[in-house]
Amino acid sequence: MLFYLSTLITVATKASSRISSFLPQTRFISSLMAPTEETLRKALEGKLSAVENQANIVRELKAKSALKPDIDAAVQALNALKLEKSDIEKSLQSLLSGTGSDSREAFRQSVVNTLERRLFYIPSFKIYRGVAGLYDYGPPGCAVKSNVLSFWRQHFVLEENMLEVDCPCVTPEVVLKASGHVDKFTDLMVKDEKTGTCYRADHLLKDYCNEKLQKDLTLSSDKAAEIKHVLAMLDDFSSQELGAKIKEYGITAPETKNPLSDPYPFNLMFQTSIGPSGLAPGFMRPETAQGIFVNFKDLYYYNGNKLPFAAAQIGQAFRNEISPRQGLLRVREFTLAEIEHFVDPEDKSHPKYAEVADLEFLMFPREEQVSGQSAKKIRLGEAVSKGIVNNETLGYFIGRVYLFLTRLGIDKDRLRFRQHLANEMAHYAADCWDAEIECSYGWIECVGIADRSAYDLRAHSEKSGVPLVAHEKYSEPKEVEKLVITPIKKELGLAFKGNQKMVVEALEAMHEKEALDMKAALESKGEVGFEVCTLGKTVTIKKSMVTIHKETKKEHQRVFTPSVIEPSFGIGRIIYCLFEHTFYTRASKAGDEQLNVFRFPSLVAPIKCTVFPLVQNQKYEEVAKLISKSLTAAGISHKVDITGTSIGKRYARTDELGVPFAVTVDSTTSVTIRERDSKDQVRVDVEKAATVIREVSEGQRTWEDVWSTFPHHSSTATDE
Amino acid sequence: MLFYLSTLITVATKASSRISSFLPQTRFISSLMAPTEETLRKALEGKLSAVENQANIVRELKAKSALKPDIDAAVQALNALKLEKSDIEKSLQSLLSGTGSDSREAFRQSVVNTLERRLFYIPSFKIYRGVAGLYDYGPPGCAVKSNVLSFWRQHFVLEENMLEVDCPCVTPEVVLKASGHVDKFTDLMVKDEKTGTCYRADHLLKDYCNEKLQKDLTLSSDKAAEIKHVLAMLDDFSSQELGAKIKEYGITAPETKNPLSDPYPFNLMFQTSIGPSGLAPGFMRPETAQGIFVNFKDLYYYNGNKLPFAAAQIGQAFRNEISPRQGLLRVREFTLAEIEHFVDPEDKSHPKYAEVADLEFLMFPREEQVSGQSAKKIRLGEAVSKGIVNNETLGYFIGRVYLFLTRLGIDKDRLRFRQHLANEMAHYAADCWDAEIECSYGWIECVGIADRSAYDLRAHSEKSGVPLVAHEKYSEPKEVEKLVITPIKKELGLAFKGNQKMVVEALEAMHEKEALDMKAALESKGEVGFEVCTLGKTVTIKKSMVTIHKETKKEHQRVFTPSVIEPSFGIGRIIYCLFEHTFYTRASKAGDEQLNVFRFPSLVAPIKCTVFPLVQNQKYEEVAKLISKSLTAAGISHKVDITGTSIGKRYARTDELGVPFAVTVDSTTSVTIRERDSKDQVRVDVEKAATVIREVSEGQRTWEDVWSTFPHHSSTATDE
Repeated sequence: MLFYLSTLITVATKASSRISSFLPQTRFISSLMAPTEETLRKALEGKLSAVENQANIVRELKAKSALKPDIDAAVQALNALKLEKSDIEKSLQSLLSGTGSDSREAFRQSVVNTLERRLFYIPSFKIYRGVAGLYDYGPPGCAVKSNVLSFWRQHFVLEENMLEVDCPCVTPEVVLKASGHVDKFTDLMVKDEKTGTCYRADHLLKDYCNEKLQKDLTLSSDKAAEIKHVLAMLDDFSSQELGAKIKEYGITAPETKNPLSDPYPFNLMFQTSIGPSGLAPGFMRPETAQGIFVNFKDLYYYNGNKLPFAAAQIGQAFRNEISPRQGLLRVREFTLAEIEHFVDPEDKSHPKYAEVADLEFLMFPREEQVSGQSAKKIRLGEAVSKGIVNNETLGYFIGRVYLFLTRLGIDKDRLRFRQHLANEMAHYAADCWDAEIECSYGWIECVGIADRSAYDLRAHSEKSGVPLVAHEKYSEPKEVEKLVITPIKKELGLAFKGNQKMVVEALEAMHEKEALDMKAALESKGEVGFEVCTLGKTVTIKKSMVTIHKETKKEHQRVFTPSVIEPSFGIGRIIYCLFEHTFYTRASKAGDEQLNVFRFPSLVAPIKCTVFPLVQNQKYEEVAKLISKSLTAAGISHKVDITGTSIGKRYARTDELGVPFAVTVDSTTSVTIRERDSKDQVRVDVEKAATVIREVSEGQRTWEDVWSTFPHHSSTATDE
Repeated sequence: MLFYLSTLITVATKASSRISSFLPQTRFISSLMAPTEETLRKALEGKLSAVENQANIVRELKAKSALKPDIDAAVQALNALKLEKSDIEKSLQSLLSGTGSDSREAFRQSVVNTLERRLFYIPSFKIYRGVAGLYDYGPPGCAVKSNVLSFWRQHFVLEENMLEVDCPCVTPEVVLKASGHVDKFTDLMVKDEKTGTCYRADHLLKDYCNEKLQKDLTLSSDKAAEIKHVLAMLDDFSSQELGAKIKEYGITAPETKNPLSDPYPFNLMFQTSIGPSGLAPGFMRPETAQGIFVNFKDLYYYNGNKLPFAAAQIGQAFRNEISPRQGLLRVREFTLAEIEHFVDPEDKSHPKYAEVADLEFLMFPREEQVSGQSAKKIRLGEAVSKGIVNNETLGYFIGRVYLFLTRLGIDKDRLRFRQHLANEMAHYAADCWDAEIECSYGWIECVGIADRSAYDLRAHSEKSGVPLVAHEKYSEPKEVEKLVITPIKKELGLAFKGNQKMVVEALEAMHEKEALDMKAALESKGEVGFEVCTLGKTVTIKKSMVTIHKETKKEHQRVFTPSVIEPSFGIGRIIYCLFEHTFYTRASKAGDEQLNVFRFPSLVAPIKCTVFPLVQNQKYEEVAKLISKSLTAAGISHKVDITGTSIGKRYARTDELGVPFAVTVDSTTSVTIRERDSKDQVRVDVEKAATVIREVSEGQRTWEDVWSTFPHHSSTATDE
């Protein structure tokens, strides 16, 4: 049931359980490291008891007043053993602290410092000491986000002719009741029994386990293995299991050491009330998908009653985290971009599949995960044809997501598509893959691509009573064999009296196989036990109570609930990973400091170009204004910097914002254009400058082409 | 205080009181109609009493058994009077029902029907019977919205180098406490005392008054005048005044006729709780502006500590309406685009002001409103130079808003800039203008452009303790004369004992003028009465208790709170008015039906182009695909329609979506391009088609130019 829950709620799992499983401590990475660690723990155990034994020997010798040389020899042996023990401890410690983790932390710190200092983002409501899990995008961050969303629209909505919709965040309870969020969009929480402070139960257990593994060198290898197992299973623990482990390990409230309550579910939706009466509960949507599902009928009609088609939505979603961690990756409000591609369950081919089939990238199929292997490069077409990826349409979207992410600037070697394990997937889902991006926090799920079968449309059909179905008209009527179940009400009435209605309904609701089994049993034995769920018991059905037979009917159309394939993008997470993947430092020309650079592709760069007059001078400033005007007209975001700072400092400032090109005005007839990463400069006529910048920043021209077309300019001491 | 409230809360007034004042019934329009209506009412009154008199005469004659000819004559006179009365009644009725209002209603119905049928918008959660005041944008609506926002970014953010930010919707209480929303973002509500159903108090009173005026022909002209006065004053009524009127008129609950409670304020923010404790109240933001104000310090720094600069934000805002009306104009969740332009209060000039000064458009200054005139065309530069518009920067934004709206396709003759009346404006505001667009609901406020002085930054400075100020470094230190107030504590202690502290604080807090007055009074009279608010009384201050003198100090910089000029755009309202302004119908070629057209400028059209193969034919479809591919690559949204429907029907379908251009593939070498409004067609080579479409839809080329360049194609019967 928990598995069901964890995949029913796409965003829930996205934002909570799944990611944490891929932090360095846990199953996959640790399983690779396990042999060494285990060896060391075993060796340490051995050495510890050896030290103890030897210490006893020394003590006994002393007690017996043995000869000094004997005692000295024993002490010497003891010291040697202690030295060996200490060596093993050191190895274990260095292994556990994770050689990489310090440098990862340091790297993250320098990225985050740059991001905050240059206002890529700002903790929201900072002057009021902020709110955990809420962040603003400042000017450059906001521009990056807007560029990512524009490209998303171009790459998905426009290229695939998707139907984009825009639904409200405020959502009435009934919708989220149908989707399952009201009942199941929860995290388990414990409370400090004295102060009432709330904690996520799994976080406390995870912290305890990690601390234990990393700091407690006396941990036996058996105990270490048990704790690792707990970490691996943690996401699947029930409330009871979590509570039991917390008790067993004696975990208390982190700050106060007070005892903790039993875990209980906390619904993660922000609740509110619609209208003044207080009688209409509503929630801030936890995902945008439901707005699309409830509109299926209209959208299907808009598409000319034809399948397949995709609807898409970009918008805010909300998740009232118990205690947000991991900075920009775990927030209480975030932008989602979601696609619901509706398709005939009997035909999941995709007309444009061939366009992506030859892509090759890191995939991490279920089998490789279970057998402890790592992700490997697979040709998408092979993964689909071998059945590793369930169907063409799912494969097509995996390919399109790969293209989207890498074109944004995500490093393809730190991007993998991980298939959900059987226990991660909802019972109804056909297949599910996450685009995971590796960053300093580990592998982060940034896009989920799931074939959710007919689940969502069915749930809303049932709750609303409005059939959300598609029709396929047959070119000529088809003869269809249909099972007809006819309960004989008179007999049933005599036998079941007041319960008759429930029995009739249960008989009519039988699936084909069930009915045929009953038919066979009635024919052979004359009666059969039949479980009526609504009565909560099994009744006896006799041959006289029901007839079951097959009939041939003419049908003019097939009515069915479409399957939905859902690529769901956590935009904020993608952007954060992009920040990490494009960040690097390089020495300043003088070599006296490290300068920060974001190597954003022009597509996402917040500003495409800066324009500097080399020195403060009215003529140069006029040229700068002229170029600026042309850039504005062409819709190229840029910045004019007329401060008197050295040009080197101005370049550094602009590199730190990831601006790909800089125009330096050092004459009234021609200017230099500098490319950020190579620092190469060319000389271009003033009139041509804006056009070159536009072409190169819109991708109509490569820098290489510009470099080979225009005279090179070698930077002098004043330049950089 | 109510005025203060109604302008403090920009969105509040935008979404509630202001608009309703401009429905046909109320002050401005009715003042023009009043003479005729009044004449009619007076005539009717006279005629009614004449009828009564004459009826009495007839009755008396009959009672006296007068002669038949006398009685007949009297009856005839009575009938004549009745006829005259009935004529006047008819005139009054036709006047009151508003000749225009029926056709306005009908026009709105055909716009709204088209919008709903073509999924420009959809009532949200329709399959669950919807939620009042929540709407989805369907595919074409969503595309229009996205185009409007893109253009807004280009026209304001990019062209003005604004700092765009993106803050969360979830907002902690402290922020909205400081802004005044927690205390004052309210509407007055009454409850049905038996069922608990809630109503907006002003709506009930307004409905009653309108009904009375329109339906009750026996209303005396005095009573009618009174009711009109109530309608005009309604927005300014206090809770007590509203309650008194509701009682006086005996207004009851509309459905049940039950008595109503007294009016009480209902806060219009959606409330929620941040985090799991339930102890941190939060709200869904009612406007985006506060997110900018709280970031002022960082943004000022980002701008190199220089003024002026503008920050901008696009995002969702929320308003928990008591009972939403007016369809898409009064909703519970909407997109705002807001600009906060921070400027030195001592220099409100604008460097680009000259670029807009010559614009001439409908303005409706305060004076014209008060004196009952109508809006008139004024040159913006004249309005600023005459002081009608308070300052250049405010004027600059009014001009930019005018350009923005008209370029979107808003009819300039149904757009006016209305200045707030003195009683509509906050006490701190320097000036405020609304861009109002006329649609079938009347004049609708769509953009507010206010000079809010330093109010918002001061409010957050005070609440947070973080100074939100700007600095102006003097090139050399300035000698500044400063007033120094020194309370003599010993004397004050003797005189006021325990109250000394309050008196000292009050003395120190005196403004310059107050202090100088006190100094003069003390010098002349030796003592003076002084009101100490914190004590709630006036004390006597003697000469010995305080010294007041001026001192000359050297200052190196000026520290001040910037003024903010705030253009705030209700995107959904602008879009709805755009729908009305661009909608028209025209007869089909056969003349048998009226076809709907939206004449969207290409800039906002949801789809720029449709591509039709003339007949179903593989060769034509391949040409269509080829053109489609080029359009996609160029980022031009388009649709290929390969249904076998007649080309005329397909044109009609595409006109109804406001698609400006249609490419019809009727050969494999050349195609026709048709312009929506003129229905003119040109013939263009297949290879050139996509380029022509791109140029003409991106505005690099006009249709006139295309028309004069390419051979004309005259449509045949099969075409249209």
